[in-house]
Amino acid sequence: MGKNQNVYDNEIFFEGYKGIREQENNYNKLQEQPAIKSLLPDLKGKRVLDLGCGYGESCSYFIEKGAKKVVGIDISRKMLEVAREENSHENIEYLEKSMDDIDNLTGKFDLIYSSLALHYMEDFKKLLTDINTLLDTDGLFIYSQEHPLTTAHEKGQRWTRDESGMRIHYNLANYMKSGKREVTWFIDGVVKYHRTFSEIINTVNECGFQIEKVLEPLPSKEDIKLIPKMVQDFHKPNFLIIRAGRR
Amino acid sequence: MGKNQNVYDNEIFFEGYKGIREQENNYNKLQEQPAIKSLLPDLKGKRVLDLGCGYGESCSYFIEKGAKKVVGIDISRKMLEVAREENSHENIEYLEKSMDDIDNLTGKFDLIYSSLALHYMEDFKKLLTDINTLLDTDGLFIYSQEHPLTTAHEKGQRWTRDESGMRIHYNLANYMKSGKREVTWFIDGVVKYHRTFSEIINTVNECGFQIEKVLEPLPSKEDIKLIPKMVQDFHKPNFLIIRAGRR
Repeated sequence: MGKNQNVYDNEIFFEGYKGIREQENNYNKLQEQPAIKSLLPDLKGKRVLDLGCGYGESCSYFIEKGAKKVVGIDISRKMLEVAREENSHENIEYLEKSMDDIDNLTGKFDLIYSSLALHYMEDFKKLLTDINTLLDTDGLFIYSQEHPLTTAHEKGQRWTRDESGMRIHYNLANYMKSGKREVTWFIDGVVKYHRTFSEIINTVNECGFQIEKVLEPLPSKEDIKLIPKMVQDFHKPNFLIIRAGRR
Repeated sequence: MGKNQNVYDNEIFFEGYKGIREQENNYNKLQEQPAIKSLLPDLKGKRVLDLGCGYGESCSYFIEKGAKKVVGIDISRKMLEVAREENSHENIEYLEKSMDDIDNLTGKFDLIYSSLALHYMEDFKKLLTDINTLLDTDGLFIYSQEHPLTTAHEKGQRWTRDESGMRIHYNLANYMKSGKREVTWFIDGVVKYHRTFSEIINTVNECGFQIEKVLEPLPSKEDIKLIPKMVQDFHKPNFLIIRAGRR
């Protein structure tokens, strides 16, 4: 774990994660993906880099939307095997690579995209600096991460429930303590890095970006019909999504 | 209450608030003021507008730091009486005025400053638009407000405590529900407006500003020596402070 954490190649984690992603309705499909996609620019003729591309679904989407070249990188060989099987295209290149090592990529991109991967990265500043370097003039950086109110969590119960099991409030602790968090998600010892909201905004700024839009997506009425417990997301959002332009 | 809420002219509120502000050590003096002052530019020869100037302490400070003209506005006649008595200066002008009505001010400012007042304002977008209009080229807007995690609160207990009375977590609810909050602070029915982090950042952006720095101040080691319970602020910050330049 740590710098080059590759939990997605753990057999138990891989299968557990696959189970969630294969559900017809899940948080990614209903909340995170529509929100991050709403921030995408016109992709016709664009060069796109997808950091932590996983199964390559977004890479295929970029091609559909007219991108002329997509590079998807992921540290997990098992994820990339699925990507190459299910989302192969002559203009998509998949690379087995840690986000810590993108400083040796060559070429420039118009869009660098990352969905729910950056909270695994310890050195946020180095990564954003590398991303800025890889972007062409007028390039965009659009990414999602677990919301800081979610990553703040260390241990203990996350929620306080009433007698019916309904979540009545989120148990927020240690929000101002940035740093490593070890959580259990399918397996023990999954390492994430908590950063406060101000730390995120200031780092994006300092690394040469101008923030254009910040989203904390909410469930829609339709989502709540599909997954009624999503009404509880009004207490605490799950995702933070940022669109930033290269200054 | 509401649009032109003037709770500070309520006798009970005024005396209660005065009691807090007169304490040698309080959250304003130890956390909010050092943090917001750390964001100030060189003030020599500058024109400053202070929104919700209260006792006028910051107006005096700006003059000390070389400002050539300071306008302090406040909706509370009682607060301004104190300001005129304790922080009078030939280059400070105090105006009894709601922040809703700054669109009829004339002249331009190099700095518009506001300490812990904007969470009382319902129409954030109009206010920021007016502030942008009143700023000269290269003008700065620097303000503090109650942190969104604080304003989210509606009713019930804010904190869960252990047997010794120590705060173990903040009871976060309704964070994603923007809007009016009625709280009890010396008197019942004090009206504040909760806005999410993304709503704040996006509104500042949309109103023609570029965010330069965001602070969520923490107590220092010295603060914790003076007020030991401040160690609990690591669970949830009290203030949000933003420095933004006119685009």
